[in-house]
Formats: sequence, C-alpha cells, structure tokens
Amino acid sequence: MKVGIIGGTGDIGKGMALRLSQNHEVIIGSRKEEKASLSCDACCQCLRELNLPFNLTASTNQGVVDDSDIVVFSVPSETLQITIDSLTGLEGKLVVSLMNPMERGDFFKYAPPEEGSAALQLQRMLPDSRVIAAFNNIPAKQWNQIAEILDYSVCVCGDDEEGKKVVMELVNSISELQALNAGPLAVSATVEAITPLVINIAKFNKMRDVGVYFR
Amino acid sequence: MKVGIIGGTGDIGKGMALRLSQNHEVIIGSRKEEKASLSCDACCQCLRELNLPFNLTASTNQGVVDDSDIVVFSVPSETLQITIDSLTGLEGKLVVSLMNPMERGDFFKYAPPEEGSAALQLQRMLPDSRVIAAFNNIPAKQWNQIAEILDYSVCVCGDDEEGKKVVMELVNSISELQALNAGPLAVSATVEAITPLVINIAKFNKMRDVGVYFR
Repeated sequence: MKVGIIGGTGDIGKGMALRLSQNHEVIIGSRKEEKASLSCDACCQCLRELNLPFNLTASTNQGVVDDSDIVVFSVPSETLQITIDSLTGLEGKLVVSLMNPMERGDFFKYAPPEEGSAALQLQRMLPDSRVIAAFNNIPAKQWNQIAEILDYSVCVCGDDEEGKKVVMELVNSISELQALNAGPLAVSATVEAITPLVINIAKFNKMRDVGVYFR
Repeated sequence: MKVGIIGGTGDIGKGMALRLSQNHEVIIGSRKEEKASLSCDACCQCLRELNLPFNLTASTNQGVVDDSDIVVFSVPSETLQITIDSLTGLEGKLVVSLMNPMERGDFFKYAPPEEGSAALQLQRMLPDSRVIAAFNNIPAKQWNQIAEILDYSVCVCGDDEEGKKVVMELVNSISELQALNAGPLAVSATVEAITPLVINIAKFNKMRDVGVYFR
C-alpha cells in the first residue's frame, strides 16, 4: 500500500514516516520538494542506523497525491484550506485526517470548525474523497521514539466502510497499535477533542505523553 | 465523608452505593423514600452475603441533601430540572455530576444541553453549589459487579479546586479507580462525550463494557 503524507516534514508526519515506511511504501510530501528531501534523508539515515528495512521517498504535496493510494493530511488546521486549494486529483482517494484543532489558554480547549470537526471540514472541502479520521490521539513524541512500542487504542471514524477497513489495517500494521471502529465521521469531533483532554491530563497530573486505551 | 446519591435507585446509583458504602457513610436517595428503602435493603443484603462491611441508609432526595457532605446526581438529564426544583439547601454543597446526555440512533451521539455539558447545565441551575464532574465513563454494569476490580481512569473536572481534590479522593477510595484532574468544568463536555464513544466502540468492535484508561 502506497501511503503519502501531506505535511510530512512536521513532527508527527516524520514520526509516521519512520513507523510506516518499515512495512509500506511511504512518500513524504511538502510544499517544497527540497524540504521533503531533507526530512526524508534524515529519516532514512535514522532507519539505516537502526538496521531497519524501509521504503521511503520524498516529493511535493502534489506528488504525494499523484502517487499514493492513501493520502494522510498532517497539516495545521489553519493551513488546511490553502493546502487543499494547491492540490488536484484527490477525487476518489482515501484521505486520512489526524488533525485536532485546539486553542491554548490556561488549558487546551478543543476548537472545532463550524462543520463540527476537522475531519468533517476536510470531507466538506473534498466531497468526492473518502475521508477517514485516525491516529488523532497518539502523543506526538511517541511517534518518533521508534525503538519504543506503540500500543495505544486508535479510534477510526468514517462513512466509507471499505476505506475504514483499509485504514484500520494500516493502523494495526504499526507497532502494537490497536485500531477500533469508532463509527461514522460524525463521531470524529469526540475523538479529536480527546487530544486536548490528554494534554490537559498530562499537564494537571504531572504525567508525560499520555495516550488513551479503550478496554 | 457522608455521600448521598440523588436517584440512587437506578443502576449506576445502586452500583455506586454498593462500592462507596464499604468505605463511606452513604445515603441512597429517591423521590419516594419507600423506593429508596427497597433499594437500600437489596444492597445491604448483597453486601452482607459477601461479608463486606458497609454503612448504608435510605432517604428521600431532600433527606440526601440535608444530611450529605457530597451530593451525587445520578438522574437522567431529562428529569434534572424537575429534581432540582423539588430540592432546597444545595447552596455551598459539593455536587457531583456523572450525567452523560446522549441520543440513540444508528449510533450513540453526545447531545449536550445549550450550556455545553450536563455538568455545566447543573452548575448554571445551582450557581451557589460547587459542581464537579466525575465517574462519567465507568461502564454501568461494572459498578454492580462488586467482586470485580474497577481500575479505570476517572476524569474529574471542576472550577472549585478544593472540591475537586475531595472528589478525587472519593474516586481513589473505590477499588483501584484512578482519579485524574482533567481541568476546569468547561472540559466536562469532552469527558461526557466519551461515554457514547465507548458505547459505540463496544458495539462496532464486539467488545463488552468498554472503559477508558489514560496512561
């Protein structure tokens, strides 16, 4: 399965590339190809040093769309519209949203767009794509600690049942993550809101990198 | 610590009474004292059969308010207003909300009142009480299985820091529950929304009595 990451040079994008490229063909995308290449080189070096197999290349965000079966959006929600406007060919594609819009004050507060969630907004912007929300609640730092096991529960929401199955398989192919079918895309608001909640829990209880388990 | 449960004859209320009365003085409240007494008798018999110590009595909902340090509201959100209207003397009291308003359709959907959450609504109805949200995400059936360990994470939200500490101690006194300070009462919307989410997860993934752990 070819997986492309739009905004693949950010912290979470890089971590996903490191994790996914051991089992899948992964393309790191960025607005500028040079930036994607630099990030890709760093990831490849890291994986080589650990003697891990990988299949990882770099491209522009458009290159990612052109060449991938699954397109992951890992961009800040503020730049989502401008990113979407710069791309063509997303019709029919499986698109994964891991965005969690939030505001920072005395505590982190979920700040969804008027559609109700970032994933619902993405589906409204891309009516002909199959949008699935996943990977929302994994602590950013844990993505990059590739020597460490990831064993969190991962809620997967979407209205396209076939697409949801494919993304659940993708989730389950990473370390010991456990994909859970959380229902339709409408549920993504709750899943996204869990991210500011776990950041608050970490802060108020002096914990680190808090994740979520449903059991 | 004297804990009273308004609506203590419902499933969750009864389970809480069974769990809490082993370490605290607990009063089961109901609109009608006879109903509370019947429920109390059944709980006492159950605890006696298990040779567990307990301190459990019955009263009206008003009796609960008059005699308790902590008043737990375990009523369906539809009957909240009528219950509040029937009570006096809640000013200054520590009031615990474990309500999770939701709608049932193809999936369970969080359906908060216009205040944003059931706990915020309760705080608006009782401006002089110290409202704390807690115990929201514990699977109803697990409360009653008193032979079984409860080891879930329990988010506790509130704007009264002292009151929050007291409720966190109450949480930690039950089996192996782990209280987590989740921040101000504004966060209670996310915590309440997790309940329909876990019910959906149980349904869509053929799991039973799903709870949540933050680690």
